[in-house]
Amino acid sequence: MSDAPHRRAKILITSGPTRQYLDPVRYLTNASSGRMGAALAAAVLQRGHDAVIVSGPVTVDYPPGAHVIDVLTTDEMLHAAGELFPECDGAIGAAAPCDYKPLQVSDQKLSKTGQPLVLELIETPDVIAVLGQSKRSDQWVVGFALETDDRHFRATVKQQKKCCDLMVSNGPEAIDAADNNVELLDRDGSIIETISGSKQHVADRLIHQIHHRLILPCP
Amino acid sequence: MSDAPHRRAKILITSGPTRQYLDPVRYLTNASSGRMGAALAAAVLQRGHDAVIVSGPVTVDYPPGAHVIDVLTTDEMLHAAGELFPECDGAIGAAAPCDYKPLQVSDQKLSKTGQPLVLELIETPDVIAVLGQSKRSDQWVVGFALETDDRHFRATVKQQKKCCDLMVSNGPEAIDAADNNVELLDRDGSIIETISGSKQHVADRLIHQIHHRLILPCP
Repeated sequence: MSDAPHRRAKILITSGPTRQYLDPVRYLTNASSGRMGAALAAAVLQRGHDAVIVSGPVTVDYPPGAHVIDVLTTDEMLHAAGELFPECDGAIGAAAPCDYKPLQVSDQKLSKTGQPLVLELIETPDVIAVLGQSKRSDQWVVGFALETDDRHFRATVKQQKKCCDLMVSNGPEAIDAADNNVELLDRDGSIIETISGSKQHVADRLIHQIHHRLILPCP
Repeated sequence: MSDAPHRRAKILITSGPTRQYLDPVRYLTNASSGRMGAALAAAVLQRGHDAVIVSGPVTVDYPPGAHVIDVLTTDEMLHAAGELFPECDGAIGAAAPCDYKPLQVSDQKLSKTGQPLVLELIETPDVIAVLGQSKRSDQWVVGFALETDDRHFRATVKQQKKCCDLMVSNGPEAIDAADNNVELLDRDGSIIETISGSKQHVADRLIHQIHHRLILPCP
């Protein structure tokens, strides 16, 4: 008999970018490709767990065994993730939701006037923070922090604010890249593991840690 | 002997979206897929002409016979197109360059503060207008106008402002779609042809018209 009996967990993964439109044509976004989300889903399935992906618009292929819900905006991502989370054991926030949206959205394409355009942006809801703050004691949340400066410090601040059980800290060079270089941080901000290599290798190591630290210890 | 002897023309095609970054992660863009540009290049090659594509970031596959130059921003698209245009017979502006850019770009990822973010945007250069206004008498330029309202009127205004020999008018439903529905407008704003169907069908008809109206009559 194995010393770690198998628990089949259902894991929610947010993935890809979201878009926030100014008008019917122009929008704010980022270059997130969904590759990290796809690699995490593959690793989750490989371990015998279930993967549900809430994904912004991407061209990456998600593993056929994963259940994928497509969304466009951050509010849609939050709504879909919020509906799915209660039936999941945990959530991994690999998406890069667009975190600002125009205060006013035009329903006609804005015409150029030759003059500057002043755009007032407001923050969108923080998807992983909402999940982290609403999680039951038998649920867990793993966040990603992407920072250009003071990475470790800012990731730790985000981890506490978002009530994440583990935090993955990476830099902007991860976006739309084949490889990644991350630090996995524990609740107290200490580094559990530094992982470099293909996104699939990084995902395999992260799911290994999540499996042993968050899934197996659950009642 | 054919009544229309073959002239091998070199045709510049701008294609795809461009991006204008606010900081190292966030940018303004649109959902242009590059499919119309790819279909136009295929039609150009099919007719025995040469195709040079200046393309923003897309995942579409351009035909292997086309020469592709990759760019990211509107200024880069203008620079590349401006360098190539003197050696081309004509240009087709199928790209959807991002036409606003932030006045100030942060070299660090902007941190969320909980407060609104006021973004001052200025217009980027109009790539096809610059080509149209600088073209020699033996060169031609075909523009695309994408409008949500007053399509025909606005396309005609754009045609004159951008010094385009022909103008293709379409709507936002063309973006990132398999099909398109366009009007081809002559210099005086009259409709030469209305074309609906797959982007390849639309491209074939447009290149047919360009071939007979702009390429063959050239000295």
